[in-house]
Amino acid sequence: SGLVHVKNPHLDTMDEDVLYHLDLGTKTHNLPAMFGDIKFVCVGGSPNRMRAFAQFMHQELGLTGDGEELADICAGTDRYAMYRAGPVLSISHGMGIPSISIMLHELIKLLHHAKCRDVTIIRIGTSGGLGIKAGSVVVTDMALDSSFRPRFEQVVLGDVVVRSTELDQDLAEELLTCSREISDFPTLIGHTMCTYDFYEGQGRLDGALCSFSSEKKLEYLRRAYDAGVRNIEMESTAFAALCGLCGLRGES
Amino acid sequence: SGLVHVKNPHLDTMDEDVLYHLDLGTKTHNLPAMFGDIKFVCVGGSPNRMRAFAQFMHQELGLTGDGEELADICAGTDRYAMYRAGPVLSISHGMGIPSISIMLHELIKLLHHAKCRDVTIIRIGTSGGLGIKAGSVVVTDMALDSSFRPRFEQVVLGDVVVRSTELDQDLAEELLTCSREISDFPTLIGHTMCTYDFYEGQGRLDGALCSFSSEKKLEYLRRAYDAGVRNIEMESTAFAALCGLCGLRGES
Repeated sequence: SGLVHVKNPHLDTMDEDVLYHLDLGTKTHNLPAMFGDIKFVCVGGSPNRMRAFAQFMHQELGLTGDGEELADICAGTDRYAMYRAGPVLSISHGMGIPSISIMLHELIKLLHHAKCRDVTIIRIGTSGGLGIKAGSVVVTDMALDSSFRPRFEQVVLGDVVVRSTELDQDLAEELLTCSREISDFPTLIGHTMCTYDFYEGQGRLDGALCSFSSEKKLEYLRRAYDAGVRNIEMESTAFAALCGLCGLRGES
Repeated sequence: SGLVHVKNPHLDTMDEDVLYHLDLGTKTHNLPAMFGDIKFVCVGGSPNRMRAFAQFMHQELGLTGDGEELADICAGTDRYAMYRAGPVLSISHGMGIPSISIMLHELIKLLHHAKCRDVTIIRIGTSGGLGIKAGSVVVTDMALDSSFRPRFEQVVLGDVVVRSTELDQDLAEELLTCSREISDFPTLIGHTMCTYDFYEGQGRLDGALCSFSSEKKLEYLRRAYDAGVRNIEMESTAFAALCGLCGLRGES
């Protein structure tokens, strides 16, 4: 049907669904009217960048007006920022798995309530490249955890549940094909490693704490490269797991 | 000496330290002049709230001006917001452990470079109460993970390192004593549980995914209560671990 699946039997019994961190809700907003025609959702960490991206899309799509006055749909909260340009929604998610997870739970319910169909979701963001030219774009075929496993461990009521982190391979190929029309930067398909920590977790030598040598750092990053990792960031495993479970065609 | 410890031998060999996510640095800013007299750091999730808190402190401390025009010291980035009112620094950290960890690494280095002494750091934030009156303030004596253990598991180069999450007990008692002067809300000392997820991780029935019954949820929350948990949030274990290791007197 192309609809977005929520996998929560309790939702049907609720009189109202408040999407708290987006400052939206089923009783306060007409979600089908506001979002029913959305086909693409692009998410990234920084609110300013996601605003700039929405303005860029506004121009690229040839929409009327200069796009400078795009309003933040989530203006009532400072947790996330959301802009739309035609069928494209652009949303910030902050940094790290817990932050993107809150946003994705509420976004998925938003798309469900709005009865959106055939939605493609793409995470765009900065990441640390591994053995590739600076400025390259990595299209993720699979998100790996810090032990290079294609899995996301979600704690549910204290128990660990393991989820798949495979992304849409056809979409990855499509994005790679699109990139061939743009010669400004190299684009490649590869695995993306997702960590819970920016400093110690990604082998940085310049955090407040660092207990390892430069050699140990390089040895870890080399093992990551050999496992197929081409970039490192902090959201992709949760993004892949949640999108996969809810029938959203996703890429990162 | 009361100084803030960084535990990273590499820092001494660096010509410049760029605190990237704070948009500050040792070559671009005179950190001792800007921050050397800071004695208290208050951190919380939302940038707007931390601005309001700095304005409140400005008034409470009787500083000149109305505090309405406090400037965001991190205005060059939208990752975090930082305000100061006299000896008090007020900083946002976003949502979740990865987000607060990035900020704390850079904050600890900032306090170190600025040669601050005897700094007290307090996390203030909303949390879900457990078996206590709505509106209560919980002063955390110990942060627990989602299995009710007083530990924080940090992945360093793919290996799990376990860290203590005990907070400053004297400071907890001091805060409790202060609260006795304010009758507006109940205050108590208790354990705080920290989760990586807001919906499935905290037993909420209204996420995009929910695989458990209301009974299973209540059973988990009851076990948490029996383990001494009085509130649930998403940052305290990392906060306690990092502050403890770096000699910052911390409370949450």
